[in-house]
Amino acid sequence: MFEAAKLGRQVSKETFKAEVPELRYQLLKAQRALRGTDTAVVVIISGVEGAGKGEVVNILNEWLDTRGMQTFAFWDETDEERERPRYWRFWRTLPERGNISILFGGWYMDPIVHRIKDRCTDAEVDAELSRITDFERMLTEDGALVVKFWFHLPEEVERKKLKKLSRDDRSRWKMNPKKGRFSDHYEQFEKVAERIIRHTDTGISPWYLIEATDERYRDLTVGRTLLEAINARLESPKITDYATTVSQAPLLPSDPGAQLTVLDKVDLSQSLERTLYKTELKKLQAELNLLAWEAYQKKRSCVLVFEGVDAGGKGGAIRRLTNAIDSRLYRTIPVAAPSDEEKAHHYLWRFWRHIPRAGRLTVYDRSWYGRVLVERVEGFASDDEWKQAYSEINEFEEQLVESGIVVLKFWLQISQDEQLARFKARAETPYKEHKITDEDWRNRERWNEYKLAVNEMVVRTSTEYSPWTLVPGNDKPFARIEVLRTVRDRLKAALKEENGRHLSPCKAIK
Amino acid sequence: MFEAAKLGRQVSKETFKAEVPELRYQLLKAQRALRGTDTAVVVIISGVEGAGKGEVVNILNEWLDTRGMQTFAFWDETDEERERPRYWRFWRTLPERGNISILFGGWYMDPIVHRIKDRCTDAEVDAELSRITDFERMLTEDGALVVKFWFHLPEEVERKKLKKLSRDDRSRWKMNPKKGRFSDHYEQFEKVAERIIRHTDTGISPWYLIEATDERYRDLTVGRTLLEAINARLESPKITDYATTVSQAPLLPSDPGAQLTVLDKVDLSQSLERTLYKTELKKLQAELNLLAWEAYQKKRSCVLVFEGVDAGGKGGAIRRLTNAIDSRLYRTIPVAAPSDEEKAHHYLWRFWRHIPRAGRLTVYDRSWYGRVLVERVEGFASDDEWKQAYSEINEFEEQLVESGIVVLKFWLQISQDEQLARFKARAETPYKEHKITDEDWRNRERWNEYKLAVNEMVVRTSTEYSPWTLVPGNDKPFARIEVLRTVRDRLKAALKEENGRHLSPCKAIK
Repeated sequence: MFEAAKLGRQVSKETFKAEVPELRYQLLKAQRALRGTDTAVVVIISGVEGAGKGEVVNILNEWLDTRGMQTFAFWDETDEERERPRYWRFWRTLPERGNISILFGGWYMDPIVHRIKDRCTDAEVDAELSRITDFERMLTEDGALVVKFWFHLPEEVERKKLKKLSRDDRSRWKMNPKKGRFSDHYEQFEKVAERIIRHTDTGISPWYLIEATDERYRDLTVGRTLLEAINARLESPKITDYATTVSQAPLLPSDPGAQLTVLDKVDLSQSLERTLYKTELKKLQAELNLLAWEAYQKKRSCVLVFEGVDAGGKGGAIRRLTNAIDSRLYRTIPVAAPSDEEKAHHYLWRFWRHIPRAGRLTVYDRSWYGRVLVERVEGFASDDEWKQAYSEINEFEEQLVESGIVVLKFWLQISQDEQLARFKARAETPYKEHKITDEDWRNRERWNEYKLAVNEMVVRTSTEYSPWTLVPGNDKPFARIEVLRTVRDRLKAALKEENGRHLSPCKAIK
Repeated sequence: MFEAAKLGRQVSKETFKAEVPELRYQLLKAQRALRGTDTAVVVIISGVEGAGKGEVVNILNEWLDTRGMQTFAFWDETDEERERPRYWRFWRTLPERGNISILFGGWYMDPIVHRIKDRCTDAEVDAELSRITDFERMLTEDGALVVKFWFHLPEEVERKKLKKLSRDDRSRWKMNPKKGRFSDHYEQFEKVAERIIRHTDTGISPWYLIEATDERYRDLTVGRTLLEAINARLESPKITDYATTVSQAPLLPSDPGAQLTVLDKVDLSQSLERTLYKTELKKLQAELNLLAWEAYQKKRSCVLVFEGVDAGGKGGAIRRLTNAIDSRLYRTIPVAAPSDEEKAHHYLWRFWRHIPRAGRLTVYDRSWYGRVLVERVEGFASDDEWKQAYSEINEFEEQLVESGIVVLKFWLQISQDEQLARFKARAETPYKEHKITDEDWRNRERWNEYKLAVNEMVVRTSTEYSPWTLVPGNDKPFARIEVLRTVRDRLKAALKEENGRHLSPCKAIK
C-alpha cells in the first residue's frame, strides 16, 4: 500500500512560490462558502513519525482563516475524559456546521498505539475499526465531511529526517520530547497502519495517502486535497446511497386490524394500595440512597431515560427517584429546545455533553428518543434521518454500557381516558396548569401515530444491554414503585458484577 | 448573630399542607416570569451539618420546574478544574439569563473549610471575602440575583439530629458518608461562619439566616424567601446605586490641544532590516519552542491577548508566534460574535471558557477588551457597563496571574497612513481581500474615538502583574520581533521563579 508514498515526488521552490497564493485564495474562498452550510469539516492528521504532522497543522492554520477552525490533540487525557465513555472526548472536539476541526490522530491514535504495543489482537483492532467506520458514517450522514490524511516516508528517509532534526541547531526545536517512540519499529508500524487504513478507507470517508519526503510537495498536496474535498462537497451537498444501516422491513402487517403493538400488552389495570405504596416507597428509597453511594464509591455511573405519553407521570416518577439520592450524585436534564450551539452539531451531541462522570447518575427527562418519536411524528426529521437513528442510538448506548454505565430506559404508558382526566385536572390545579399546553392537546390527536412510533422504537432499540421497561402508568403509585424497583434491581445487579466495566472490543484501550 | 436562628420557630403539619400549594403556584409563576428576562438566579445553600441542606435542594427541585434549573456541588474537583484558576469551576456553573442555578456551598465552601482546619489566617480569609463580594457585585451588576441561605441549628439540636439520623433505620440513608466532619467543632464552626457571613452580607446580595430546627418551617421559609427575592427583582429590575467601583475621574484634560495619549508616545518610525529579521526570527522561534515545552513540563500556563488597530498586523504576529510552538500546546481563540449560550451569560463567561489547562497557551485574537473598545465606541455597551469593565477585567486578570498563569497583552499600533496603504493592498490581494470589510472603513472614521478608548484602557488596565505592551506596527518585521521577544522574556522570567504559582490571599486554598 505504501509504495505509492515512496516515489520521491518533489515540488521545486519556484513552483511552490508560484502556486501557493492561488491555493490560499481558493482555500479561503471555499472556507467562506462553507459557512452557513450544514457541512462540518473534520480533518484527521496521521502518519509516521518525522513526517511533519505538526508543520502541516501549522501551515493549514496559516493558509486558512482561524475563525471557525480549531485544532485538537488527544495525547493526555483528563480525568473528566477518563471517567466517561471513550468517544466523549472526540464528541467534545467535533466542529459546528460550517466550521473545521483539525484532529491530531483523532480516533485512530488509540488503535494504532495499542496494536503496536501489542496490547490487543488484530481481531480486537478490527472490532474497533468497525466502530470507527460506523462513527464516520454517522457523522457523514449528518452532513459532516471527514478528510483523513496519512503522511508517509520511506524508512531510510524517516531515519535521516529524525537524525537531521536532532542534529541541526536551527531546527532541533522542532523535535518534541516524544519523538522517536515508534521510529524504531518502522516495519511493524507500517504493518499496523496498513491494516487500519485498509479497514477504514470507505467511499464516504477515504484516506489520502501523502508522501512526506519533500515538504513542499507534502504541503501543496494537503492544501489541494483539502480544497478539492471541500469544493466537491459544496457542489453536491446531498449525501446518498450509503444509508445501508436503515432497515426497511415493516414491523407490523399492513392490515389495520392486526396492528397490535407492544403497548397493547401493557396491563394498565394494575394498581397498588396506598399504605402499601408508602411503606414500599420508603424502603426502596432507603435502598436506592445506599446503592447510589455504593455506585459512587465503585465509580459505576448510571444513565436513566424517561419517555412516555404526555401526562404519563414522568415527572412524579423522576422526583420519587431523585428524592432518594443525594443531590450531589445526580443531575436531571430536562430536554427542551436545543441552543444554537447544540443545533450546529449532530443531534446526539447535546446528550453526549451531559454524560455523567464516574459514579454519578444522569436522569434525562425526555431524551435522544425524541428523534424517533416527536421528530418522526411531527415531521421535524426526514424519513432517512429517523430511520438511521435506531442504529445510531443502539451504537451510542452500547458505548455507554461498554464503559461501565448502567443504562435504564422507561416508557410510561397510560390510557387515552386517563390522559384526558389528567389534562383536565392539570388545567384546574393552579400549580399544575403550566404543565398543560395546546401542544399536549395536539399530540393527543396523534395518539395512534405515536403508538406506532413507540412500538417501532421499543422493538428496534430494546437491546440485551439496554432494555426498555414499559411501565403501566394509570395508577401512579404502581408506576412509581415499578420504576424504583427496576432501578434498584438493575443497579444492585450491576454493582455485584466482578468487573464493573464491560470491556471495549480492544480491551486494552480502556 | 445566630441567636435569631435558635428561637424554636415551628410550622404545624396543617399550616404546611395548607400553604404549600399556593407557594408552589407562586414559585412556578415567578419562574415563568423570570424566563425571557435578563436575570440569572444564583441560589447558595450553606449552613451547619445536619440542617438538611440536601433536603432543601430536593424540595426546591420538587416545587420548581426543573427546566431551566440546575444543581451543582463542589466537593470533588476534577483535574480540568484544578489546573485552572480557582473560580473557573464556579463560572462553569453560572446560569443563563432567565434560569436558576442552585449551588451547594458555592464559593463559600473553601474559605469555611480552610479556616476551620486552620489552614489560613483570619486576614487571609478576609482577603478572599473581598474577592467574593467583588464577584457577587459583578454578577449582580450584570443582572444576576444572588440569594444566599445559611441554615442553622442550636448545638444540642444538631447533636440530636445527627444522632437520630444515624439511629433511625428509615432515615439512616439520609446520612451521607461525609457527615459529622464539622459537627464536633460546633463553636469554632459558628465563629468562622459568623465572620464570613458578616463580611459578605451586602446590600446587593444579603444572607438569609434560616432556622432549620423544624423542617416544615425551614422549607416554607426558604420557598417564601426565594419567591420574594425573585418577585422583588422582577418588579424593579434596574440595579442602581452601587456602582461604586466605577471611576469617574477624567483621564485627560478637556482642552483638545492637550489630548496627548499613550499612543502618541509610540515611536512608529522604528524598523528592522530584512536579513536581520530572518535571523532573529529563527532564533526567537527556536527559543520559544523550547520555552513552551518547559512551561508544559512545569505546568505554567500562558494567556496572550492581541488587540490593535485594524490591519495593525495582529494576525501576522500571532502566526509567527504560534508557528514556533507545538500545535498541541496552544489554542488560538478568534473572538467573533458570541453564540446564544454565550450571550446568555456575563460577558467574561465566554473568555473563562477557554482559559488553558496547566502548561498550555491560549492566544486570544481580540479579547475581553472589546468591552472597553468596540462596545464603548459603537455604543453596544452602556456607559455604566464599560466603565465597570476596567475593574472587572483587572480582577479577572489578577485571578489568572494568582493561579500561576503568565498574562501578556499586546496592542499593535500603526499610523493612519499606514492603515490606508494596508487596506488598499488587502483589497488588491486575492487571498487577503476577505480581511477588509465595510466595517473596517467605518471604524477608520472613528480613529480618534478609538484612540481615546485605547488610552483609557491602557492607563486603567496596565497593571504590575499584567502590563500592556504597545507595539509600533508600521514596520511588520520590527513588530513581530518585538512581540516574540516580549513573550520570550516574560516566559523565561516566569519559568525561573522559584515558586511558579503566585499564591491566593488564602494561601492554602489553592
